[in-house]
Amino acid sequence: MKYRIASIPGDGIGPEIVREARKVLAKVGEVYGHTFEYEDLLMGGCSIDVYGESLTDETLEKAKGCDSVLLGAVGGNVGQSNWYQIEPSKRPEAGLLKIRKGLELYANIRPAILFDELSGACPLKEELTEGGFDFVVMRELTGGLYFGERKTIEENGVKKAIDTLTYDENEIRRIAKWGFDVAMKRNKKVCSVDKANVLDSSRLWRSVVAEVAKDYPEVELTNMLVDNCAMQLVRDPKQFDVILTENMFGDILSDEASMVTGSIGMLSSASLGATKLGLYEPSHGSAPDIAGQDIANPIATILSAAMMLRYSFDLEKEADAIEDAVKKVLAEGYRTVDIMDEGKTRVGTTKMGDLIAERIG
Amino acid sequence: MKYRIASIPGDGIGPEIVREARKVLAKVGEVYGHTFEYEDLLMGGCSIDVYGESLTDETLEKAKGCDSVLLGAVGGNVGQSNWYQIEPSKRPEAGLLKIRKGLELYANIRPAILFDELSGACPLKEELTEGGFDFVVMRELTGGLYFGERKTIEENGVKKAIDTLTYDENEIRRIAKWGFDVAMKRNKKVCSVDKANVLDSSRLWRSVVAEVAKDYPEVELTNMLVDNCAMQLVRDPKQFDVILTENMFGDILSDEASMVTGSIGMLSSASLGATKLGLYEPSHGSAPDIAGQDIANPIATILSAAMMLRYSFDLEKEADAIEDAVKKVLAEGYRTVDIMDEGKTRVGTTKMGDLIAERIG
Ligand SMILES: [Mg+2]
Ligand SMILES: [Mg+2]
Repeated sequence: MKYRIASIPGDGIGPEIVREARKVLAKVGEVYGHTFEYEDLLMGGCSIDVYGESLTDETLEKAKGCDSVLLGAVGGNVGQSNWYQIEPSKRPEAGLLKIRKGLELYANIRPAILFDELSGACPLKEELTEGGFDFVVMRELTGGLYFGERKTIEENGVKKAIDTLTYDENEIRRIAKWGFDVAMKRNKKVCSVDKANVLDSSRLWRSVVAEVAKDYPEVELTNMLVDNCAMQLVRDPKQFDVILTENMFGDILSDEASMVTGSIGMLSSASLGATKLGLYEPSHGSAPDIAGQDIANPIATILSAAMMLRYSFDLEKEADAIEDAVKKVLAEGYRTVDIMDEGKTRVGTTKMGDLIAERIG
Repeated sequence: MKYRIASIPGDGIGPEIVREARKVLAKVGEVYGHTFEYEDLLMGGCSIDVYGESLTDETLEKAKGCDSVLLGAVGGNVGQSNWYQIEPSKRPEAGLLKIRKGLELYANIRPAILFDELSGACPLKEELTEGGFDFVVMRELTGGLYFGERKTIEENGVKKAIDTLTYDENEIRRIAKWGFDVAMKRNKKVCSVDKANVLDSSRLWRSVVAEVAKDYPEVELTNMLVDNCAMQLVRDPKQFDVILTENMFGDILSDEASMVTGSIGMLSSASLGATKLGLYEPSHGSAPDIAGQDIANPIATILSAAMMLRYSFDLEKEADAIEDAVKKVLAEGYRTVDIMDEGKTRVGTTKMGDLIAERIG
């Protein structure tokens, strides 16, 4: 098959890490008989330098015409870069919001994987994480408290601020479907997280999720209160497969989960919407201070590319091949500097990409 | 000095653990020259048995007339007890809501303490918690999303749920003051947690907290976003002294923090309001299954009594004396069954109370 990918390296270490992900995809194409074509696009500071804004409408349209988007990272050094001397709506990070909105992406997936080989970096005791863990937090991205109406008023001289948390059943249903679809490609367990003992929006959430679950008889659905989930992530992260939750709870829990892995630089992410077109990017930032030195860790981006194969292209065994190659390279003791440890072999960005590509097929 | 304490043992293990806390207070009184008098009150299932409801108005009035309230725990076995066959507003837990409301308590303090001696139970690696940690989460208890207006409507056949998060500056100011007051009795650091990059209520929260901070020049104030705080609790809990936050964030973070200690059965709690009258109780429940067997751990209740001395009565050195006695008993290897470990000495509820009382003065 032939796939057309919008390649958006962005700023800082973005170009290096996207280059390595493309190297790995090229090897996958070779081994499994696929062609990955790229539309090279500018976003972030590099687009500001050329067009005066982080993402032009033309670039967005070109991305929409592709099968999927692979993104590096955007942004520079806030204190120093003149990318931040322009109006906020044109700055690097505004491009990210614009592309998510333009592609109508409403589901964010953040895997929390503890590779057994990197358990030294995990803050939890080994007995709790033996064998590693691998779950995802699926967060609704466009609704809830973060996008509700808000205002600050004055009543009898007293300032009062009001934020609104709104969800309708359609917004819940579409993300719930993604949650179960993703679970079907994983261990077939969905844990829906809410605060249904208090919030109306959570009670609606829980009932719609239960409805959607009926179409996925193979998937086991459980419900958990958000405060309990914040505890369980620390106590027993191995119990989870897919955590499905609304925007704000997902914000808090996905960050907590990433810290529980101890290797934030290794974590990929995906944003999905109504179609198969998704946006895949590492969880980490553009790290301008180490750009161009061949020391950045490309693994989060390479794992993002694997997610693209799995969720946008339904190329399961190809995605597995990338993930297995990453595990192999780690097991063989290769490390970039950010995950370097005693007795391991330190390699640079390019070499890490080579090693992973070599282990495919 | 003479202090009048409303003693509300409640149900299950409540009577045993309150008895031990009173034993320790008696020793404190003896050593430091105070008199603690008790008004014995019924709340929970034991009140249902007598009066048909969890908390009568008369009992509430009696509690209001005291200097402070010491509570054990309320409630029975939901599946079996006939305390749950009556209307919800009269059931055991309804008494808790009624007394908090009746005493106008709006600030909840949950200490998260890792006793060095119990670090084996902590889910975090020893290198992150060496020497133990000791901070409190101070949560606003009567406002925000959990108490806002809510409704579920139907628009063009689509169900939609709306919850509202409201805070006015007075609600924020009064809890912020408690936060700084508590910090002054501790390590003089307040970390205020919000989501000010998104929410109007958080921006108002941050500005009012900054205003209150001006009256406490000795206290160092920092601000942290809630998602970052959920990470920092796992990564480096030792950095915190007082975490000051709104209701929902406090619900999530205080539970996460308690799990990070690994010893939930050891944690005390306090609820404070406009006056010095506070409600002090263990974080754990009434554990009806082990009631009356002299195996319950009284330490959370004993530490709650220490908080009462510190925050309601301003008896600093007396509170320190109780906390030091608890540490000593743990260091000497005494354990109730819930925290029992290899090579330690197992003791029952009464003996644990004796041991702690003996080590005061
Ligand atoms: Mg976040
Ligand atoms: Mg809670």
